[in-house]
Amino acid sequence: MTRLYNDPVKFVDEATEGFVAAHAQHVCQVPGGVIRSTRSEPGTVAVVIGGGSGHYPAFAGLVGQGLAHGAVMGNLFASPSAQQVYNVCKAANNGGGILLSFGNYAGDVLHFGQARERLIREGIPCEVVEVTDDISSASHAELPKRRGIAGDLTVFKTAAAAAEEGYSLEEVTRVSRAANLRTRSMGVAFDGCTLPGADDALFHVPEGKMAVGLGIHGEPGISEQAVPSADELAELLVSHLLEEIPDGVASANGARASVLLNGLGSIKYEELFVVYRRVSQLLEKAGIDTIEPEVGELVTSLDMAGASLTLFWLDDELERLWRAPVNSPAYRKGSLKPAAPIDASKLDIPDEEAIPPASEASAEAAHCINEALGAVRKLIDDNAEELGRLDAIAGDGDHGIGMQRGVVAASEAANQALTRNAGAGTLLHLAAEAWADRAGGTSGAIWGVMLNALSSTLGDHDKPTADHYAQALTKARSDVMNFGKAKAGDKTLVDALLPFSATLEQQVKDGDNLASAWGKAAAAATEAAEATADMIPQIGRARPLAEKSRGTPDPGAKSLAMIVNTVHDVIKRHQG
Amino acid sequence: MTRLYNDPVKFVDEATEGFVAAHAQHVCQVPGGVIRSTRSEPGTVAVVIGGGSGHYPAFAGLVGQGLAHGAVMGNLFASPSAQQVYNVCKAANNGGGILLSFGNYAGDVLHFGQARERLIREGIPCEVVEVTDDISSASHAELPKRRGIAGDLTVFKTAAAAAEEGYSLEEVTRVSRAANLRTRSMGVAFDGCTLPGADDALFHVPEGKMAVGLGIHGEPGISEQAVPSADELAELLVSHLLEEIPDGVASANGARASVLLNGLGSIKYEELFVVYRRVSQLLEKAGIDTIEPEVGELVTSLDMAGASLTLFWLDDELERLWRAPVNSPAYRKGSLKPAAPIDASKLDIPDEEAIPPASEASAEAAHCINEALGAVRKLIDDNAEELGRLDAIAGDGDHGIGMQRGVVAASEAANQALTRNAGAGTLLHLAAEAWADRAGGTSGAIWGVMLNALSSTLGDHDKPTADHYAQALTKARSDVMNFGKAKAGDKTLVDALLPFSATLEQQVKDGDNLASAWGKAAAAATEAAEATADMIPQIGRARPLAEKSRGTPDPGAKSLAMIVNTVHDVIKRHQG
Repeated sequence: MTRLYNDPVKFVDEATEGFVAAHAQHVCQVPGGVIRSTRSEPGTVAVVIGGGSGHYPAFAGLVGQGLAHGAVMGNLFASPSAQQVYNVCKAANNGGGILLSFGNYAGDVLHFGQARERLIREGIPCEVVEVTDDISSASHAELPKRRGIAGDLTVFKTAAAAAEEGYSLEEVTRVSRAANLRTRSMGVAFDGCTLPGADDALFHVPEGKMAVGLGIHGEPGISEQAVPSADELAELLVSHLLEEIPDGVASANGARASVLLNGLGSIKYEELFVVYRRVSQLLEKAGIDTIEPEVGELVTSLDMAGASLTLFWLDDELERLWRAPVNSPAYRKGSLKPAAPIDASKLDIPDEEAIPPASEASAEAAHCINEALGAVRKLIDDNAEELGRLDAIAGDGDHGIGMQRGVVAASEAANQALTRNAGAGTLLHLAAEAWADRAGGTSGAIWGVMLNALSSTLGDHDKPTADHYAQALTKARSDVMNFGKAKAGDKTLVDALLPFSATLEQQVKDGDNLASAWGKAAAAATEAAEATADMIPQIGRARPLAEKSRGTPDPGAKSLAMIVNTVHDVIKRHQG
Repeated sequence: MTRLYNDPVKFVDEATEGFVAAHAQHVCQVPGGVIRSTRSEPGTVAVVIGGGSGHYPAFAGLVGQGLAHGAVMGNLFASPSAQQVYNVCKAANNGGGILLSFGNYAGDVLHFGQARERLIREGIPCEVVEVTDDISSASHAELPKRRGIAGDLTVFKTAAAAAEEGYSLEEVTRVSRAANLRTRSMGVAFDGCTLPGADDALFHVPEGKMAVGLGIHGEPGISEQAVPSADELAELLVSHLLEEIPDGVASANGARASVLLNGLGSIKYEELFVVYRRVSQLLEKAGIDTIEPEVGELVTSLDMAGASLTLFWLDDELERLWRAPVNSPAYRKGSLKPAAPIDASKLDIPDEEAIPPASEASAEAAHCINEALGAVRKLIDDNAEELGRLDAIAGDGDHGIGMQRGVVAASEAANQALTRNAGAGTLLHLAAEAWADRAGGTSGAIWGVMLNALSSTLGDHDKPTADHYAQALTKARSDVMNFGKAKAGDKTLVDALLPFSATLEQQVKDGDNLASAWGKAAAAATEAAEATADMIPQIGRARPLAEKSRGTPDPGAKSLAMIVNTVHDVIKRHQG
């Protein structure tokens, strides 16, 4: 929804004022819209674009060197008036005639057309190119009836680059019409946007559904289906677009195209990149050479949830014009001095670490430790969801996933280390690095620190004794506290680790064997982990709901307790 | 919410793959993140940034010429591992040492710190600069504890521009620390984002409330208040930031600062521009010279609803570094050959039209028409809400507002035309242009066409007769149908205009006087407007809910009927 506004009636005027204040080096305001604040070459064609507001970067964000000379700005989703178009054209005119371009909507066609007639009457040559890229809005036979969506940019960009090169109005019109005929888009929507001050969205798509082909103002689409996966969406869009290869392109295989994957407002960059990954695979498979694609927000509808894919089929001239540099408020490319590409094969990326020689006793211990890691992996696999649930109460709910990623990587690294005859110390070190590397987050680092503490205490030579393990855990406890700065009572893993290592140390000192001492220590850890339910988190990065976690044990303490209990079973098996 | 993904566990990996596919000219992938795909000057410092994913453009979108040399990419909102940091540094190293910079979060501090130690052990000089711009996250006395938010960019940009200029590691570290100490941000949030596959948002802010100072991962803020107006938000943010002018800046008055107004995901550009309008006024009032501000999305949290304001207080060196060119996937500036600014005072903006001389009879008619326009203005003022409500059923609900804007402008233009002794034709022409210009949208244009048809039929010389008016309305009907392409039965204003003009023509032909003929025509229009309730719209740009409008009369037809009835009252008064 649109939350930030003053008087809704003044929304567009105030947004325009703010836009011009932020981008004075590119644009200045004139009655009806904005024009470039920089000088253009006298005698060149001026490209004037426009339409309703609410679609930023379209249209005002696309005014600047290498792109439009002016943008006419209507009210929210409403065509500007003919007077506005006329005013912006008069101000943008460089003496080479005016090319008007805009999406093919009834109101815009009327008003830009009226303005064109008036300009021609006054002796200013003027042509109109309506953008008709939306393949869902009419059949191919009725192409001139199609609406314009994100493909606007390819037409504007081509026209403007041609104008910048000194093309005549006739020639600018020719290339921008050619660009339009080689541009095909298709969009989907998940929900509509809310106008400032409105009680509800302009339209809704039913929860869990995706409207295929819905227009950027909610114009009817072609069908409705369940929200697909990112890959399925890529497949849907690419397959429809490839059904309609424009005249002049022999076949997809061997063709060049630019690609625009456009977010309409609240589909964010990361999601678009996940979709683009598959789009790019599919285009490569179809034999299409992708030229300077764009993934981001090019034409929005306030905070509408939706996206569109555009293919712009290039020939030599259109490719040159598409690649030409631009410096506008919201679209810039081709700046700076050219830089040579690097040779990625020569990058300094660390090699696999060498495995130091190990004693037979240590290699045997490595086997036991590997077995324990395998058991822990199974434990975490079985409990990842529950750990995530615990974490979601006061954190970001990723503790289960993080532990799973970590232990899977650690266990795989340990398996591989065994095949290379690693001792206990090296196996633990490689498992530690893999855990920390793959798990990410603070808990990943802490498990890395613990396993590394075990690694350095056990080494690759001694036969590990109960005393070694007790020492190792004492070092792990001390390193973790040093590293993570957590104290007892902060509601972290330390609250379970402290009684665990203290009990283990004491029991071993008192002459207990490893299995027995570990069992008592594990029981202490279990009890302590449960007791964290009474605490409130004191540190950490994503704990806005810290208070809410009272009554729930800390997931880090809980997973430590579960793990030491599982390891206890392995120790008992080996000792027994 | 995050809708587009495949396996949520693979979200970041797949997003990275898509990102690199889209931006191969800027970046290439290495274990742990991305580095520039372009050569950097040998021996220069490499600036490596990073943190959790989900914040695009931060961090990977900021890698490229003039900005970072590499970005380490952790999982969603989770710190990357030390191994990842190390790997990216090794690949990004140009031989001049490494500057690591990132937001001040516990996990990042740990992992980047570990990687730094390892790099130094291996003989690669490395420094760390944590960004601490968020003034809500700790008091000024505890500045090093503050979190890093959108101010990241000023520190990264400054460090990178210094590296590009050949500064030593010591010098790059010095300027980036200085930049950090001169950067202050404050954020607000309205709602949290939803991780891929999650059932609910990471956190919520209560409906209608705004959390002040809430962090980008939902870290606790400082207070909660009702959602303010855009201006109030600007005032809140600016006043807090001006309370903490950094050391080295004598006073706000006369200082230079860059300004970042950052959207966190679903607060859109238009809203940010409305806020920026007021920010820019307030900074100007405080005597601050604003240098190359940025309004847009610089650090997001997926689709989180929130925004932040950053002030970056400049000195000569920092200003030069801030202005330096950049060409990265998500941030570009200073491209192309410099262009001279235009002289806005010399723009060709149309002058006021001259008023042609009018006959006394026509000037008298102009007075009556002006009176009618005034009555219509009052009518529309009283009914704007109702017309909006009708329009909201099948359209975008702006018919009432549009009519209001149009008739207010038309009536003001007519008033002014009277003071300049305009005849009926000229008064109607000026009213027509004002209506079409200010109302916007198709209905604005149509009223412009109607009033212009009246204008050209009545002219400035004849004394208008009943016959003139009947002819004028016939012309208006014909022009409107020609212009708007609507036919009878399309559920538009034409459905009321057709019987109105036909009845008027027939009655006048039959010898009826104007008041009587107009009354019968108005009754026909009223009946016809009500009958549009049975129709479904056939044309128009925002009618996804067309079917829903059955049972509701067309707002355009309805307003026409209301208007001709009101004009009838004026005619009766004058005739009687």
